[in-house]
Amino acid sequence: METFTTHGGRLAQAQRLFTGAIEPWIDLSTGVNPRPYPAQPASSRARARLPDPQETSALETVAAEAFGIAADAVLATPGVEAAIRLLAGVLRADRVGIVEPTYGGHAEAWRAAGKVVTGIDRGALSSSADACDVVVVVNPNNPDGETVSAMALRALADRMAKRGGWLVVDEAFVEVRPEVSLLTYLGGAWRADGLIVLRSFGKFYGLPGLRLGFVAAGPDVITRLRVRQGEWPVSADAIAAGLQAYPDRSWADQTRIQLAAGARRLDALLSRAGLNVLGGTSLFRLAAADDAQSRFVRMAQAGVLTRPFDYEPTWLRFGLPDPDNWRRVEAALMESAS
Amino acid sequence: METFTTHGGRLAQAQRLFTGAIEPWIDLSTGVNPRPYPAQPASSRARARLPDPQETSALETVAAEAFGIAADAVLATPGVEAAIRLLAGVLRADRVGIVEPTYGGHAEAWRAAGKVVTGIDRGALSSSADACDVVVVVNPNNPDGETVSAMALRALADRMAKRGGWLVVDEAFVEVRPEVSLLTYLGGAWRADGLIVLRSFGKFYGLPGLRLGFVAAGPDVITRLRVRQGEWPVSADAIAAGLQAYPDRSWADQTRIQLAAGARRLDALLSRAGLNVLGGTSLFRLAAADDAQSRFVRMAQAGVLTRPFDYEPTWLRFGLPDPDNWRRVEAALMESAS
Repeated sequence: METFTTHGGRLAQAQRLFTGAIEPWIDLSTGVNPRPYPAQPASSRARARLPDPQETSALETVAAEAFGIAADAVLATPGVEAAIRLLAGVLRADRVGIVEPTYGGHAEAWRAAGKVVTGIDRGALSSSADACDVVVVVNPNNPDGETVSAMALRALADRMAKRGGWLVVDEAFVEVRPEVSLLTYLGGAWRADGLIVLRSFGKFYGLPGLRLGFVAAGPDVITRLRVRQGEWPVSADAIAAGLQAYPDRSWADQTRIQLAAGARRLDALLSRAGLNVLGGTSLFRLAAADDAQSRFVRMAQAGVLTRPFDYEPTWLRFGLPDPDNWRRVEAALMESAS
Repeated sequence: METFTTHGGRLAQAQRLFTGAIEPWIDLSTGVNPRPYPAQPASSRARARLPDPQETSALETVAAEAFGIAADAVLATPGVEAAIRLLAGVLRADRVGIVEPTYGGHAEAWRAAGKVVTGIDRGALSSSADACDVVVVVNPNNPDGETVSAMALRALADRMAKRGGWLVVDEAFVEVRPEVSLLTYLGGAWRADGLIVLRSFGKFYGLPGLRLGFVAAGPDVITRLRVRQGEWPVSADAIAAGLQAYPDRSWADQTRIQLAAGARRLDALLSRAGLNVLGGTSLFRLAAADDAQSRFVRMAQAGVLTRPFDYEPTWLRFGLPDPDNWRRVEAALMESAS
């Protein structure tokens, strides 16, 4: 079970454990858009040479434009996970506070870097922050979709900065809640010394296999991170996809509407199946049931992988199915209730 | 000029500086096989989900088989540069000695991690090592192709280990000199506490745009590095290409022969153009001429980008042209002499 409560996307392990499950498997264990951006792969030529730094720079520019900030405030990384690891290796910090429950990769990264990590209760964010050198907030939060207002986060970043500390805001799912984004809020006025924001390409654009994420921060911090990260951080395919996808605002707008409709449909289904929908974003829904663990198993036997949690055994998180899979998901959900 | 003496592959910058150059540019500034392995891209499905850890593990297994060592001694990274940075962030070291001249990324990485870096003369390797916590040897070396015997390196690793230190051997170009490889030498008997070996996928297989490299070390070190690096380090396309290419030994054997023939042809050409061939590997050749700097400029004006060196202005390094480009390279070389 631990395999599935640590991270989503462990399909091979599920196939091994649940032999006899209906094939092909439907993986709802991650929070990824099931209708990927139709990005053309990189050209053979681009794959056959090192990515030119000017291409990586062009990628950072279109990403910064999509985020609404200046290009020199953005660094491309091979995924948000890599960005988190980079920060944990670079920022001076002894005590790291993480608003929990949340994505486990943050605590893992800081612990692996030898820091003392404390979980912070959302309600006590402001008072707990003073005891930390770095505070991490995932906004909107995974798995519950909870948010902290941009205004409150900005004030917190200012306070952290005064003490030489940092606020790290992980906006990995913010594309479906743009009004929540600190980057949108700060925009051209972006200037927050103690603030570092993480963005994901793969989740909203449905291409996590390409490994692409971004750090947004003041130019000084970006320069330090860039020097530490080294050359050619992201692949030709990641560059090609980002260059195509970020400028395509109409796709993003339509996708937000489609994902929101999908989330509503999934909520209705979860309720009908006797689960209590707690929240989430349009990329994943969190629901509770006393028999969540046995539902996880029964759904897995039906070839549908969901995301259980060790710290809260009544919870299950559901990504959105792709359009062809709604019927099977519905059937598996209904049968899992019996 | 600094753009071109730091790293190869700065084609966009060359295009900007040398307007009026013959198009399309021929980039000989890196040491990459000009005939890439014909790898199929990852499937749309694979790009649309997180790489399953078991796929990454399968990639490490085929790579380990190709290297001739056990699978638990290998970690996949998004390129050798990322591997170097990972080591610099994890290994305890104050003083790092690097056998120079060599690939500049090593010194950059350790300096960025706050370590004191010293250049070591190849002839004084054994005596200089005692003053260092980490010693780095690129073998065969870039740009001169110099080698240190596997036996000497193994002895050095043992000595470093006794002091709690490390020998890092960068075998990024070793596929064209397999007899030089420490991994081949140690093979099943691989057990060297103080030894870490780096391998590159992109150079020999001609696909550096995919960003794929490997660290080989004892299982304990690999586990530490894996925890520090985090989840999903390499992309779906990198996994797909590695899984296809590494088991294909006949392609590798033919490619070694082709590259060696290409290197001989290039040497003959360089000599005819009045350059003095100093060495290299079958993936790049190092040559000297008093007027190397002006030859660099004249070749660039002819649309051929080579690799100059700030620390040795009489040197130029040449990658192998792809089969269609030999004539243009020959013409540019001959004209650059005038």
